[in-house]
Parts: sequence; C-alpha cells; structure tokens
Amino acid sequence: MTQLVTISVDAMGADDGPVIAIDGVEAILARKPGQAMRFLMHGDEAQLAPLIAAKSEAVRNTIEIRHTDSEVRMTDKPSEAVRRSRGSSMWNALISVKEGEAAAVVSAGNTGALMAISKVVLRMKKGVHRPAIAASWPTVKGHTVVLDVGANVECSASQLVEFAIMGEAYHRAVHGSSNPTVGLLNVGQEELKGNDTVREAARLIQDAHLKLNYYGFVEGDDISMGQTDVVVTDGFSGNIALKTAEGAVKLVAAWMRESFTSSMSAKAGAALLSINGLKQLRTRLDPRSINGGVLLGLNGMVIKSHGGTDGEGFATALGIGVDLAPSHFLSEIEGNLARLADANDAEMAKEPAE
Amino acid sequence: MTQLVTISVDAMGADDGPVIAIDGVEAILARKPGQAMRFLMHGDEAQLAPLIAAKSEAVRNTIEIRHTDSEVRMTDKPSEAVRRSRGSSMWNALISVKEGEAAAVVSAGNTGALMAISKVVLRMKKGVHRPAIAASWPTVKGHTVVLDVGANVECSASQLVEFAIMGEAYHRAVHGSSNPTVGLLNVGQEELKGNDTVREAARLIQDAHLKLNYYGFVEGDDISMGQTDVVVTDGFSGNIALKTAEGAVKLVAAWMRESFTSSMSAKAGAALLSINGLKQLRTRLDPRSINGGVLLGLNGMVIKSHGGTDGEGFATALGIGVDLAPSHFLSEIEGNLARLADANDAEMAKEPAE
Repeated sequence: MTQLVTISVDAMGADDGPVIAIDGVEAILARKPGQAMRFLMHGDEAQLAPLIAAKSEAVRNTIEIRHTDSEVRMTDKPSEAVRRSRGSSMWNALISVKEGEAAAVVSAGNTGALMAISKVVLRMKKGVHRPAIAASWPTVKGHTVVLDVGANVECSASQLVEFAIMGEAYHRAVHGSSNPTVGLLNVGQEELKGNDTVREAARLIQDAHLKLNYYGFVEGDDISMGQTDVVVTDGFSGNIALKTAEGAVKLVAAWMRESFTSSMSAKAGAALLSINGLKQLRTRLDPRSINGGVLLGLNGMVIKSHGGTDGEGFATALGIGVDLAPSHFLSEIEGNLARLADANDAEMAKEPAE
Repeated sequence: MTQLVTISVDAMGADDGPVIAIDGVEAILARKPGQAMRFLMHGDEAQLAPLIAAKSEAVRNTIEIRHTDSEVRMTDKPSEAVRRSRGSSMWNALISVKEGEAAAVVSAGNTGALMAISKVVLRMKKGVHRPAIAASWPTVKGHTVVLDVGANVECSASQLVEFAIMGEAYHRAVHGSSNPTVGLLNVGQEELKGNDTVREAARLIQDAHLKLNYYGFVEGDDISMGQTDVVVTDGFSGNIALKTAEGAVKLVAAWMRESFTSSMSAKAGAALLSINGLKQLRTRLDPRSINGGVLLGLNGMVIKSHGGTDGEGFATALGIGVDLAPSHFLSEIEGNLARLADANDAEMAKEPAE
C-alpha cells in the first residue's frame, strides 16, 4: 500500500450535480487499486449522503462528508463569487488544502470563480501575477505541458515568461524530465513571426539568467508531435488549441465508426473493436481520459475538471490530484521563480548601462 | 465533358521545386477524368521541359510552359518581394488571372509575398483592407469555412467583420448553402468572454443592417463538429487552430497504426486497412487531402498550397481552383461587401444621434 493521499473535493461544481463527484470516487478506486485514498467531500449533506449510501463499502469508507450550505453558481462573476463564496463548497474545499488537511483540491465549478477564490484562499506564489491553467497534452512521445489553456485571455510578455517558468517546473516534477524543452506557440510563416507580445516573450525567455532550455517558436502541429516538453501561449490561443484538438479527435473517431460500419458487418466491427489494442485506442480517444487542468502559481494544488464531465471524467481529474500529491512541483516552481526574480534583478541592473 | 477550366500555376514555389507542380497536374487529371483542364505553367523552362516530357501524352497536352527567369524566394520579405518580383513565376502567374487567361492561380510559394504581390497585381475589392486566407475544414456535417488561417496576425474588429462577410459569401458560392451560419471563435468559459476585439466584432456582426445569419460565439471543438458554416477568427488563432487540428489528426493516425500493429499480425492489419471503408478513412486522415487555402478579398482567385507538399497535395490545391472556377464567389463577395458599406453608412448616420 502506498502512502495515503487525501483529496479535497468541491462536490457541487459539476453541471450534473454531486453524483458526478461520488461516481468519480468509485471510478478512481477501481483504477488505482493499490493506492490508499481519502476524499473530503464538500457539499450539501442531504444530497450527498444518499448517493454515498448507495455505493459499496470500499467507496463509503474513503469519503468524508463536509457539509456546506451554499455553492458557487456557474453564472456568478468572479468578483461576486469571491464576495459571497465564504462557506461555499468551493471555498471550504480550498480551505482544506490551505490548512494542510488535503494534498489537492478538485472542482468542476465555474473556472473564473475557482481562480479568484483560489487566489484569495491560497494566495499566489511570490513573483506570479495570475494563475495559469496547465494541461498535460498526450503526444506521440509522451506528454507535453501546455499553458495557459484558458485562465488569462490577454497576456503580457512577462506573463508568458512566468508561464514558461511554471510549466518547466511542472513538467520536471510530474513527467520526470531533467531538463525539459520549452517552446513558444506561434504562427509558422517566416514573414509572420507572430505579434509583438510573442516576440518580446521570446527575447525575455532566451535571457541567459533564466537558464531555461528554450527551443524556440513551435507551431500548432508541433504540440501533438511532442516537439517540446512545454508549450507556452496565452489563454485565448491555448484554449482554442486545446478545444480544437478535442474536436478534431472527435471528428476522426466519428470517421472511424463510419468506416468500420461501412466496411464490415456490425458484428465484425464490434468484434474488432473489442480487440485489446483497439480498446486502448478507444480509451485514448475518449476526452474523459484527459480531463483536468492544473492551476499553477498558487500555494497549493488546484485541479479544474470540465463542468460537463461524468464520473469517469471526474475520476481522471481526481487521479491527477493523487498523482501530483507526492511530487515536488510546488517547490520546483518556487525554485524557478527565484531564478526569474534573479533574472529580473539582473535586467534592472543592466538597463541604465544601455 | 465539362467546360474547359484554365489554371495558372506558379511552378517554382514548392519547397521541392517544379516537380511538385508537374506531379500535381498528373494527379489532378487522374482524379477528375471528366473535367477538361489546361495549366499555364509559369517557371524556368529548362527545368520544366524535361519534367513534362517524362509524363504521359495526356499530361503533356494540358500543360503550357510560360518561361520566367526569376522566382520569389521563401526568405524574401513581402516588401522586398513586391519590389523585385516583376517577371517572376509568381508575378506572371497572377498576371494570367488579371488578364482573364486563367480562372485561378495556384502557388506553393512564400505566403507573405503571395499576399503582397496579389494585392499589387489583382488589387483588393472595394471595402476590404487585407486578404484573408480561408480553409475549407472537414466536419461531421460537411465543410466549414474557417478564416483567417494565417494571413493577418493581428486583426481589428472591423477586419473580423470583413472576414465574416467574405466567408459567408464564399460558403454560399462554394458549398451551396442558401443562408450560412456564421460563428466567432472564442474561449468558452462564461466569465471569460474573450478579448475586446472579439466582443466588438460580435456587436458589429449582429448589426441588423448586415443581415448575416450570426450564430454567436463558437469554441474550438465546435469547428470539427460543424456547429456553424463559417468560423471567423484572427490569423494568429486561426493558424494555431488549423495546425493544432492537423497535429491531433496525425497523433490519432499514429495511435491507430500502433493499435493495429499491437492487436493483430502485420499481415491481418494490412489486409484490414485495404478494406474500402478504411481506405476512405486513410484518405480523410491524409493532410494532403485538405491542402490549399483561398485568399479572399482580391479581384481574382488565388489559392495558396503548403510549401512542403508533394504532387498529391498540390493536386488538391489545383482541384480547389478547378472547383471554384464555375462558382460565383467573387460576385457573391462583392454583393456582401456592398451590404457592409451600407451598414457602415447607416452606422455613421446613426452615431451623431447617440
């Protein structure tokens, strides 16, 4: 048995209600039979208790209900959410991490509210202005960390540098690479080398003081090809890239179904799809298998699940929390941020001489 | 036999040289046996003549060499290219369209130079500031026109409106829809409704005077799902979306190969992949089958092929030109632009009263 990992859960965030979180616990227990886990389930006890009671003893034993009277709504603006969220399931779930009771928090709630409340409860790490959401993107070589995938619609060059710093530390801690390569997402034509922000970010990241393994600009197709370990972009382009890739994968899956149906009997097609290798393909093509973005830059681990996911998808987000718990990514990020501060000091000292 | 279509070709633009254009003609003849075609091949006769001589009589008969002494290089900046490009294969290929000899021009050359030289030779349509590159994106429902996919890295709200106007006309003319829906690409979280430009563009497009069938914001995954007939975005996000989707499709294709190999003997896998339905799947997954973006906003049809394509990919770009030739998309765009001018006049007339 590995060490017990405790995850704090905002049970009220998913579009389909608290059943998603409870089904998620059931699914993650099935996926990680050797891992000891405990879940602090923040939400409405009246709704949670019967859902939990209907599950097996193993599931019931890992869940501890933490009753809350209120919840953050999907329609709340971040500023409103912060004002009226004290005591909500989201707020209290974050408090469990702040107080050291849980290693990470998982929420499928309102993204903007989660970011804003996380900043208030957990505080930003020194040197970071706003959290970024990082996705672990499957590639032909393994995983590439892509950030920001939706937290910051407009980013300055210095924010992109913060993302590079945090993404590099995250990749090192989570995917075990010793010196991850970092690319900046850009458009490819030689004569269109992106906007001013991207060019300025490239200049800053290449600064010798940062000691980042900077690869250069990458294009959209380089992400899935695993050209670099980390891909940095603003939250607008990153969100569009992530969702466009999800759409393209869904399209190919639809084409595959169509081809199997048109080229052989339904029975033969079904038999074919039950072959082991194709089962793995089906899992890989399932968007629920890559659900969960990590908010970087906070003093604590916060994982955002898609709001519209089901129990299997929520389990994937819970699994990220369980896997991150023993990693050193928070301290890795701190180390990198200290490097960034040094680089900024050096830059400041240099400027008058120019 | 359908009506003869004449396409003007910049034979010197592809990364692998003029052989790509000649192979492309051979491939498109094979794909469209019922279509009468003629190709004005602009480039270095010394290189072209032996390549053409090696082909079948059918291929030889459709190609007319138009010798040029110079070519635009991939490294030329657009401004340089315009100055020194007179008499180059790209310039002369555009002249053939301007003078009405050819219905469209196809080039795999430097994108920025092609845009700049097209503007000089063909001129912009009244009311359009810069050309946009439109891609016909395969979806579960058919095709969605996505623009801009790389011509304009930074776009104003009014440029996005021009793209909507042109994309809608293009979809109507080419894909035959009577009242295409138009979406604006944005990020999905409710609380992050995109940047100021996207919001302002939405306001302008919804203007009653434009009479566009505006759907609203769409997200990345909506593109491949065919949520709208037209998706409008700036060239930075559009280029990233297009290439990211290409990368995701390549990743899935790699996973498929792996699954087939691991789940059955190589021989059985190969036999399976030769089944008709799966052949179609393979074609659909082949990036060469969607090569070619159309430059919209010019007084003439210009098709940009990927520089790094081969003969099969170049044939796809040639095929777009052949298919567009009988369409009315240039006059459709003009009609829409007149509507835009009326809307702008109405807006101007309205403003003092506010």
